[in-house]
Amino acid sequence: MTQPLVIYRSPVLPEWIDYNGHLRDAYYIVVASQAVDALMDHLGIDAPYRKRTHCTLYTLEMHVHYFREVKDSDLLEVTVRIIATDDKRIHAALELNCARLADPAASIEFMLLHVEQGENVKSLPFPEDIARAVQTLKAATADAAPAKRGSRKMELRGR
Amino acid sequence: MTQPLVIYRSPVLPEWIDYNGHLRDAYYIVVASQAVDALMDHLGIDAPYRKRTHCTLYTLEMHVHYFREVKDSDLLEVTVRIIATDDKRIHAALELNCARLADPAASIEFMLLHVEQGENVKSLPFPEDIARAVQTLKAATADAAPAKRGSRKMELRGR
Repeated sequence: MTQPLVIYRSPVLPEWIDYNGHLRDAYYIVVASQAVDALMDHLGIDAPYRKRTHCTLYTLEMHVHYFREVKDSDLLEVTVRIIATDDKRIHAALELNCARLADPAASIEFMLLHVEQGENVKSLPFPEDIARAVQTLKAATADAAPAKRGSRKMELRGR
Repeated sequence: MTQPLVIYRSPVLPEWIDYNGHLRDAYYIVVASQAVDALMDHLGIDAPYRKRTHCTLYTLEMHVHYFREVKDSDLLEVTVRIIATDDKRIHAALELNCARLADPAASIEFMLLHVEQGENVKSLPFPEDIARAVQTLKAATADAAPAKRGSRKMELRGR
């Protein structure tokens, strides 16, 4: 039985609350983006690696489902599953949870690409040790219970 | 010939730049979220309306494609098209552009729901004047040239 990895925790900052009295939609993504930084550290794509190789991850695509309102007293806990990977891409599924709620506040999928920065940015396969770390995390998380709702074509549907 | 409406402009703040030397993925969404505020004002779902009726828009879903890096000297211009609407939902497509780039830096689709806040949040049809404003904007923008890439099920595809 595999399960998602808890990769990051964050309080909700007062300046992230909007006129609706809850966490503004965009700040769910700030927390998720910081969780991707933690995922990069976990996989060895950390600051020393980035400095040494000029390689990093770029976000190609992101899809968010908002399920529950988050309030300014909440502490967010972010889990990650690796859904799929190839030689240079990672498809990761994050969930934002907080103790007050039984179910996730949001699910967020990211498509991430390994690139080398420079005058021209170019995609590059993961080095062997990072590819192995991605595979290890995928094996440990991919079969965990899926998110409440995953990526799909967004459209107005009848009720 | 219809065209997207320029709804919002924003500079890129220095604190939005990450260790990759460009606008962090999450801050594209902060700008887009502020553009949705401007869209709400345009449609009459403004602060006086929200105060009077306790009604507002909640974000249900969001899908982002990142096409280009944005730098700290860039000024972002956000356009909006209304793709679809029903009695209480709006499916809006935003594009983030900056003068330095010939094509969009990102496309962002939002699914927005009209709700009444209170002890229990409940969805509610738009009042007539707002429904008319949504239809007017849809008529003016829906047939504009589509975004470079719209929402789709996210998955690793072969090359």
